[in-house]
Amino acid sequence: MTVLVFLDSAFEQGRVVDASRPQLMATDQGATRGDGVFESLLAVDGGVRKEQAHLARLASSAGALRLEIPDAEAWSRAIRTALTEYAASTPDRPEAVVKLIATRGVEGAGPTAWVAVSPVPAATRRQRETGVAVLLLDRGYDSTVAQRAPWLLLGAKTLSYAVNMAAIRHAKEHGADDVIFTSSDGKVLEGPTSTVLTARHRGGVKTLVTPQLESGILPGTSQGALFKAAAEAGWQLGYGPLEPKDLLEADAVWLISSIRLLTPVTAIDGAAIPTAPELTAELAALVDRFL
Amino acid sequence: MTVLVFLDSAFEQGRVVDASRPQLMATDQGATRGDGVFESLLAVDGGVRKEQAHLARLASSAGALRLEIPDAEAWSRAIRTALTEYAASTPDRPEAVVKLIATRGVEGAGPTAWVAVSPVPAATRRQRETGVAVLLLDRGYDSTVAQRAPWLLLGAKTLSYAVNMAAIRHAKEHGADDVIFTSSDGKVLEGPTSTVLTARHRGGVKTLVTPQLESGILPGTSQGALFKAAAEAGWQLGYGPLEPKDLLEADAVWLISSIRLLTPVTAIDGAAIPTAPELTAELAALVDRFL
Repeated sequence: MTVLVFLDSAFEQGRVVDASRPQLMATDQGATRGDGVFESLLAVDGGVRKEQAHLARLASSAGALRLEIPDAEAWSRAIRTALTEYAASTPDRPEAVVKLIATRGVEGAGPTAWVAVSPVPAATRRQRETGVAVLLLDRGYDSTVAQRAPWLLLGAKTLSYAVNMAAIRHAKEHGADDVIFTSSDGKVLEGPTSTVLTARHRGGVKTLVTPQLESGILPGTSQGALFKAAAEAGWQLGYGPLEPKDLLEADAVWLISSIRLLTPVTAIDGAAIPTAPELTAELAALVDRFL
Repeated sequence: MTVLVFLDSAFEQGRVVDASRPQLMATDQGATRGDGVFESLLAVDGGVRKEQAHLARLASSAGALRLEIPDAEAWSRAIRTALTEYAASTPDRPEAVVKLIATRGVEGAGPTAWVAVSPVPAATRRQRETGVAVLLLDRGYDSTVAQRAPWLLLGAKTLSYAVNMAAIRHAKEHGADDVIFTSSDGKVLEGPTSTVLTARHRGGVKTLVTPQLESGILPGTSQGALFKAAAEAGWQLGYGPLEPKDLLEADAVWLISSIRLLTPVTAIDGAAIPTAPELTAELAALVDRFL
């Protein structure tokens, strides 16, 4: 089941509504134009992980869209309300997805904002264990355009995810599970719903590398938290540029995201690649300690 | 006011609902991921224009998204129902916007589809007369990527319009009204909500030119209808590629779309360009006869 809490200035703790009933106007610009922003957080045992990082990114995405959204405190209160409701209704589920959505609302009426809490899909949980086979797909943009074309919203997490969803469908139609986007100039970018990580373990030195933010990818909250934890654990860190050959030559490649967590990539474009179970175990232990 | 009619297999003529109440589930993938397709049609005196062209493009967009939507007859019946309701509630408005939307719906529940009829915004009507100043903005894609990367959905009219809206906001923040997108390889593409047309009138020969479809633009229903009518009226027709210099050297440039119709471009990147009121009048008369 899903719990829904709308942010509403008349309800300080958020307004709990019946998620089994329609709650959105059909003229909301979130629904008619994908004009809004979102975040997906993982809740474990009643608490959400990386709340401040997600709220900061939500605010940054909203800024890119010139969208005025409720402040972080209002979101936090609504999250608390939603998690309390969810725990009461679904006591046997230690994990949940907490989605924050803010849209431009009905024209003239101001933004719409809500928190939705729902179970983690079984398929998502499964992929943490089985890993994913990916296709490399061209995202169509070159890795320098984000800097000069802010209207492309490349660093913002908007509701306009049709291309991300189409890319995943394309992968599934071709026998894979997920996608790593590449730029038109041949750089590794990101997954449709995740950040790319690679690792090398050479001469006793462990190095974690992710594509550079300037290439127009979303700043990964999980990648950010893992880099901090890994550095404290003695890992070296690197920031792209990465090319497809770097993925093939790495000791391991993962997709990391807030809900699916650290997911090993097992094949690229139909060819198996090495995985490193000991590195996965070490990094997954760090991910499990995210707050 | 807005009239809303949902397509619903239990209601052959469509299900009329109260547009002043929430009618969409907050978990509809149209609202959470911009995962759906749409069309905007102009209704004049109770009839919609270019209905079959819009329904054909809606079906084509849905195909690109692997989205099963109701058939054309069901849409037509719902449009009739909505226009009848609208005429009864708003008898003094000869023009209306008829929006068709189909989303992927709530996961596991199948698509959501509806028709919304509302007044043509005053600002839109005004721009038909005043014309628009545009900025040329990089769309980030090169003009050949659409052919090799179908997952980018470049020929589909999806609900993921955040970039289109951001580009128009960017133009307004910089003193313009609208945008003409260019490709990363320097070709003229389209407006965020319109098709680009240019005209030359030399030695008694009138030629109408629009960018070629293969560059990843939306097939314009108004451009298509106007090309047919203009050819019958003796115009020559051409299909790109167009570059920015071609816009500056044309006798006139227009943005054409179903609601705003034929709108003269009066300036590009801050510099006035020639308009050709006699060509505009001639073509607008053809547009006014669209069925």
